[in-house]
Amino acid sequence: MTTVDITAAILIIGNEVLSGRTQDINVAYIAKTLTKLGISLLEVRIVPDQEERIIEAVQALSSRYTYLFTTGGIGATHDDITAASVAKAFQIPLVENPKALTILQNYYGDRFNEIRRRMARMPVGSELISNPVSTAPAFQIHNVFCLAGMPSVMQKMFDSLVPQLKITTPFYHNTVTCNLMEGNIGKKLEEIQRDCPDVEIGSYPFYQLDNVGVSLVIRGKDKRAIQKATCAIIEMVKSFEGDMTLETEVPLDEAASLSS
Amino acid sequence: MTTVDITAAILIIGNEVLSGRTQDINVAYIAKTLTKLGISLLEVRIVPDQEERIIEAVQALSSRYTYLFTTGGIGATHDDITAASVAKAFQIPLVENPKALTILQNYYGDRFNEIRRRMARMPVGSELISNPVSTAPAFQIHNVFCLAGMPSVMQKMFDSLVPQLKITTPFYHNTVTCNLMEGNIGKKLEEIQRDCPDVEIGSYPFYQLDNVGVSLVIRGKDKRAIQKATCAIIEMVKSFEGDMTLETEVPLDEAASLSS
Repeated sequence: MTTVDITAAILIIGNEVLSGRTQDINVAYIAKTLTKLGISLLEVRIVPDQEERIIEAVQALSSRYTYLFTTGGIGATHDDITAASVAKAFQIPLVENPKALTILQNYYGDRFNEIRRRMARMPVGSELISNPVSTAPAFQIHNVFCLAGMPSVMQKMFDSLVPQLKITTPFYHNTVTCNLMEGNIGKKLEEIQRDCPDVEIGSYPFYQLDNVGVSLVIRGKDKRAIQKATCAIIEMVKSFEGDMTLETEVPLDEAASLSS
Repeated sequence: MTTVDITAAILIIGNEVLSGRTQDINVAYIAKTLTKLGISLLEVRIVPDQEERIIEAVQALSSRYTYLFTTGGIGATHDDITAASVAKAFQIPLVENPKALTILQNYYGDRFNEIRRRMARMPVGSELISNPVSTAPAFQIHNVFCLAGMPSVMQKMFDSLVPQLKITTPFYHNTVTCNLMEGNIGKKLEEIQRDCPDVEIGSYPFYQLDNVGVSLVIRGKDKRAIQKATCAIIEMVKSFEGDMTLETEVPLDEAASLSS
């Protein structure tokens, strides 16, 4: 099976995240879906509502990855500068999008005004991304998707554009959680990682009151490789006489049904 | 009052955040404290557990900001490559830190082994950052503080290093939350921002079932400027006959007690 490498980055635009006022939850939402689509999320940046910072990040990330998703800064107030900054990043004009203008005029009717009209301004050539929550559409220009910052709106926008993303083999992961310590299993775990180069094995220890141990996450695109690594880790836990729980996206008895 | 500009960035190192498995909460924790210290958090990046990615981000962020805080990748397993990557970023040797070695030997006693010994390896010249939760110390090299990824550990480490950070005038913020719409107040709000250049005014709309409106956050270091902007926003809400609630770090009747 040939795996095409499709990559992505996220750019969070917002003083409110950098001040600690707002806990970002957009990264995790987008990341989970990209994992299912097989798209590798390789970088996230969070920058303030400052034009030069946004331009710099959009240029760096859009040129390096297949897709860039931005969140925040697409509303109607003075601190909403994403559209203008993205236009400058690509050195293309910021114009009033006729379709967006019609959507806003129809929705607001008598309440349509100059401030709301601003939300129709987008880089020339943008495609609209619909907004089923609060109407004002988001936009895509080149490989950059500029989404709302509010999670309820962002999620609907992101879900709506998923069908147009290039998809590839999904990432799968199995997790073995056990009551052993990293310092005891680390040597054997490293051997397993060396023997299983087609998976990433992550080791995430936890220390709670009466509950100390480690979650071992086996992640990759090749189901057989994930099965092999999972079985090796289970054997390792048994050899240390550990207790374990297993969460599998790739069941261990599925080998017979896998196509090669 | 002279305000020295002290800046910071955060680098989150971890495949588990980029895969969506783990919701990061370290950024918000660090950000809230930096706000109180008056340190401007200007950038956050999240990168995978890949040496070249970590090196690139450490070089970019440590050279640009007063402080860089990294989280993740300082444990004992094969995926913990922060110390080695930071050493390479600064082109200095990775060595066994004698103090860290003693701490680890004393704590683990008979359980000390080669895997746990790895946690003593740090860039030469590192200062230790104590770990009251799980013992293995973190480290500082130049302006980079490399902390644990697990929030309970990261928070204790970060709190312990706060006294050594340069502090300056804190950021304060007042928040006016009202039942008005951005599209109606946006023009007046922009005028207030123009009249009050020493504060940042952020506009954060919300749409819940029966609860639609906007939170206006006035943020800055100059208490008088925050008071002036807050009063102007309150007047604006009254002029639109809106209902409002007020949260103030800078009370509006405090003017008499402020030093100039």
